[in-house]
Amino acid sequence: MARVNDHFRLLKAGYLFPEIGRRVRAFQEANPDKSIIKLGIGDVTEPLPAAIREAMHAAIDELGDRDTFRGYGPEKGYPFLREAIAAHDFKGLNVSPEEIYISDGSKCDCGNVLDILAANGANKIAVADPVYPVYVDTNVMAGNAGPADENGRYEGLIYLEATAENDFQPAIPEAKADVVYLCYPNNPTGAVASKEYLAEWVAYAKRHGSLLLFDAAYTAFIKDADVPRSIYEIDGARDCAIEFRSFSKNAGFTGVRCAFTVVPEGLTGTASDGTEIPLAKLWDRRQSTKFNGVSYIVQRGAAAVYSEAGQRQTGELVDFYMENARLIREGLSALRMDVYGGVNAPYVWLKTPGGDSSWEFFDRLLTKANVVGTPGAGFGAAGEGYFRLSAFNSRENVIAALERIKAAL
Amino acid sequence: MARVNDHFRLLKAGYLFPEIGRRVRAFQEANPDKSIIKLGIGDVTEPLPAAIREAMHAAIDELGDRDTFRGYGPEKGYPFLREAIAAHDFKGLNVSPEEIYISDGSKCDCGNVLDILAANGANKIAVADPVYPVYVDTNVMAGNAGPADENGRYEGLIYLEATAENDFQPAIPEAKADVVYLCYPNNPTGAVASKEYLAEWVAYAKRHGSLLLFDAAYTAFIKDADVPRSIYEIDGARDCAIEFRSFSKNAGFTGVRCAFTVVPEGLTGTASDGTEIPLAKLWDRRQSTKFNGVSYIVQRGAAAVYSEAGQRQTGELVDFYMENARLIREGLSALRMDVYGGVNAPYVWLKTPGGDSSWEFFDRLLTKANVVGTPGAGFGAAGEGYFRLSAFNSRENVIAALERIKAAL
Repeated sequence: MARVNDHFRLLKAGYLFPEIGRRVRAFQEANPDKSIIKLGIGDVTEPLPAAIREAMHAAIDELGDRDTFRGYGPEKGYPFLREAIAAHDFKGLNVSPEEIYISDGSKCDCGNVLDILAANGANKIAVADPVYPVYVDTNVMAGNAGPADENGRYEGLIYLEATAENDFQPAIPEAKADVVYLCYPNNPTGAVASKEYLAEWVAYAKRHGSLLLFDAAYTAFIKDADVPRSIYEIDGARDCAIEFRSFSKNAGFTGVRCAFTVVPEGLTGTASDGTEIPLAKLWDRRQSTKFNGVSYIVQRGAAAVYSEAGQRQTGELVDFYMENARLIREGLSALRMDVYGGVNAPYVWLKTPGGDSSWEFFDRLLTKANVVGTPGAGFGAAGEGYFRLSAFNSRENVIAALERIKAAL
Repeated sequence: MARVNDHFRLLKAGYLFPEIGRRVRAFQEANPDKSIIKLGIGDVTEPLPAAIREAMHAAIDELGDRDTFRGYGPEKGYPFLREAIAAHDFKGLNVSPEEIYISDGSKCDCGNVLDILAANGANKIAVADPVYPVYVDTNVMAGNAGPADENGRYEGLIYLEATAENDFQPAIPEAKADVVYLCYPNNPTGAVASKEYLAEWVAYAKRHGSLLLFDAAYTAFIKDADVPRSIYEIDGARDCAIEFRSFSKNAGFTGVRCAFTVVPEGLTGTASDGTEIPLAKLWDRRQSTKFNGVSYIVQRGAAAVYSEAGQRQTGELVDFYMENARLIREGLSALRMDVYGGVNAPYVWLKTPGGDSSWEFFDRLLTKANVVGTPGAGFGAAGEGYFRLSAFNSRENVIAALERIKAAL
């Protein structure tokens, strides 16, 4: 009998976004004349920058000529892209192109990284609450989480609560976690981490031999000069941290698909006999066995992000969404709501007004203002009573959404 | 302490193709004036067909316009592609678009499918010998293989020997395997399976509750009308088989990246408490949690394979490589070599002449004829004494390689 992975049965049935979709569809069917504005899912809306499109057109033409045709590329990505990333995104940080692994998405990398770590509870995992659900669900699948309680909290995980009370910076725990997921700028709260705060985590990791999985997918949205863009700005982070980055949000790649992961040389994990094993060696083996590299066309597009025109155009894209974030922040503040994030991050996190639960507010916003956001409780128990609005939409829609919210609430 | 996946340490260090690369580089450095012809790795060489390029150009333009921009797509792929696949590749076979999952490569799918199955030896795995190394290595990583003996055979796996003696059709084993990997047309032997033979496997799977993982990446190269193109041509296969397909070889997508997997509705595996769990539900959850879909541009390119022009152009591509295969087969037969495959498959498999070991013949071919092939022993113990030549090259190179082999051996 082919036996299935039993751990899948521990997953909570309703992943957040399908449930949102269900409620939106039901409302739309009952109210076909209403136009709904979606500020829920963090998906980009603006056109792909010209420099990127031009590079991809050229790459397709190359594939049409026998002399310039390219078949299988290096599993870890072409040097032209890894070198551009190292030179631009990690300038002065001593990250070499060899330490960069190109992939088709941070969601994939965040999940697949568990392949190289011991499973079935051999590592104690810490996640923030609220949290990007992928970190939790992939650990459930790997057998690291155990069953969930009635609040949806898995008994095998350490939860680090991030609420207004602690300024969305979870306390460094007393307990020892072997693997800690950190996401800054944060999804969903929009909080950023100071250098001092990240240094505390690096010290914690060194003390316990922990691995930090640092998700920097939204790093391009950081505007303040003193906010670290990379975990490697912290001394010692190369010895304890993997960093995930993506082209999805800064370059409009959610449908194009390109991301990368940094695994520093010298970063190790421990085998059961105590041997220190370089994680880069394991990740390289994982990727070359289970992955065949990102489309050449897409890699050329990603490399164009680092051209002069690409830097200008993606900079404008980021500025555009950040202006949306500012409008949402200020618009809701003017309505006397408690609003967080949205300054160095494309997400605005707010306290639901009037004591509504997250889903009550979701329904109120949907039915009264015809605006869709994301209930905080969908990101974890500590997200109850909060709500996320995304800055990824057209200016027109953002302004209209704010007017509707003002009129309805 | 972050603990690593100990199973990685059981992997044989030298994956086949890096070792080939090492020897070729060493020879080239010692002989910089020699031009080497590579018939080793199964990578395509001919230009990407025009219909595919046109569709991808158009898709890029769509992404450049706010009104037609597309962000995140469905994780399982766009309906336009899944519907085209169902209509063309599974005509008359009752495979619905909903059962098709688009991915960025069959290598990924063959590896990732283990995520939904119980690991650490809970399933007994059977593989052919010789075999595509990814099936074995991913099972080593999942803890299903145990340690290897001096021939590189893992003690936890069931090996199904395919040699000239059994016409490269392994005997159906007495032992019960929970999961069986089948690859037809076969990599590396070029053998195909008859309907009767596959029906025996389906009967075996039904008897034991086994899952068949059917890799049909080379199905487009089948020319004989009576050779099945899909496992679903066999009655009952929908109850016991997953099928993997790829655009890599028929459409020249090794650098473009697109493939798909069929998980029939109603196909189940067993949980530890005996409950039957639909595998499609698990695979859908796996893909939506750890994957974000294939690039929209690439999916448009793949859909163009099914246009009238695309069918004609990819048909010509397949014919071109198959003419190479015929030339290799007949050229080596004329040299009185024992040659197999190459009729319904792009690989020619030969008995090494003069009693050479696989690697001895590799070295002889490299140094005397400056031609690179793949040593059969690299695919498993039963591949010793065999050698693979790939039909993926230009006509000119294939003809030159044959002349060199004739002159040198």
